[in-house]
Amino acid sequence: MLPQATLDQARDLLAALEAEGRTLATAESCTGGLIAAALTSIAGSSAVVMAGFVTYSNAAKVRMVGVTEASLATHGAVSEAVAREMAEGALARAEVDLALSCTGIAGPGGATPGKPVGLVFIGCARRGAQTVVERHVFPGDRAAVRAATVAAALAMAARG
Amino acid sequence: MLPQATLDQARDLLAALEAEGRTLATAESCTGGLIAAALTSIAGSSAVVMAGFVTYSNAAKVRMVGVTEASLATHGAVSEAVAREMAEGALARAEVDLALSCTGIAGPGGATPGKPVGLVFIGCARRGAQTVVERHVFPGDRAAVRAATVAAALAMAARG
Repeated sequence: MLPQATLDQARDLLAALEAEGRTLATAESCTGGLIAAALTSIAGSSAVVMAGFVTYSNAAKVRMVGVTEASLATHGAVSEAVAREMAEGALARAEVDLALSCTGIAGPGGATPGKPVGLVFIGCARRGAQTVVERHVFPGDRAAVRAATVAAALAMAARG
Repeated sequence: MLPQATLDQARDLLAALEAEGRTLATAESCTGGLIAAALTSIAGSSAVVMAGFVTYSNAAKVRMVGVTEASLATHGAVSEAVAREMAEGALARAEVDLALSCTGIAGPGGATPGKPVGLVFIGCARRGAQTVVERHVFPGDRAAVRAATVAAALAMAARG
């Protein structure tokens, strides 16, 4: 489901975080657990990865990581605002140092006017720092969009 | 990360659950999101998959799905009791019809006397039914143990 290069990214990220004594959580919508699965494919990941929230439904986004009904109603689930709230909610609820989030349209269905298949917002929240959200439109099919999202999320975390 | 046969299992399970109007959640430890990732790799999975809890640390098991400190202290995280509590906690908290859980030792480290690498407990909780927990000892390396756990969990759900 993921290329070796992405698993290597996961390994390098975990090594860097472990060296700094930092912990991580995820809050995933369109990838549905694939970011957490990539990270935990690495032996010893339990020193860094504490928890993951797969918030696939809107109700799960609200209950599990505190996404606001207002953001869902105003901006929709696939939005910068919701990605931000997911990352910050995961950071707070899992009590970690770094949280990655994503919400997007993996396809083949789900596109709406202004929100094409491949549109993904990726959030990265850090304790004591500004949350960053990136907007991407990834090409390819459902598997390609999900794999590109995992790689981009790991790259964001590695830059921090 | 998973063979096509497992993704086909996921597709068939989702089709069966969707036909019955049933919803699903996961609570994963040793697979770290891979069961949820397998299910959500299928287009249209959002009709069935509501949420997933990646409860990698003991603290996450307690906070996110209500595993008891008593079970962790008495039986350890890799136990029939904890798999049962994870499945039942996910069922209740995600308000779904079916919840799958797993806790195990994917390796290469983590083995203890009586708990070898490959030992995995898989739970399946259903609304209004007895929770079932299976004990497995899967052969192979970390990736093999995790992949076998995903396949066995999907098979348990399909039998219900």
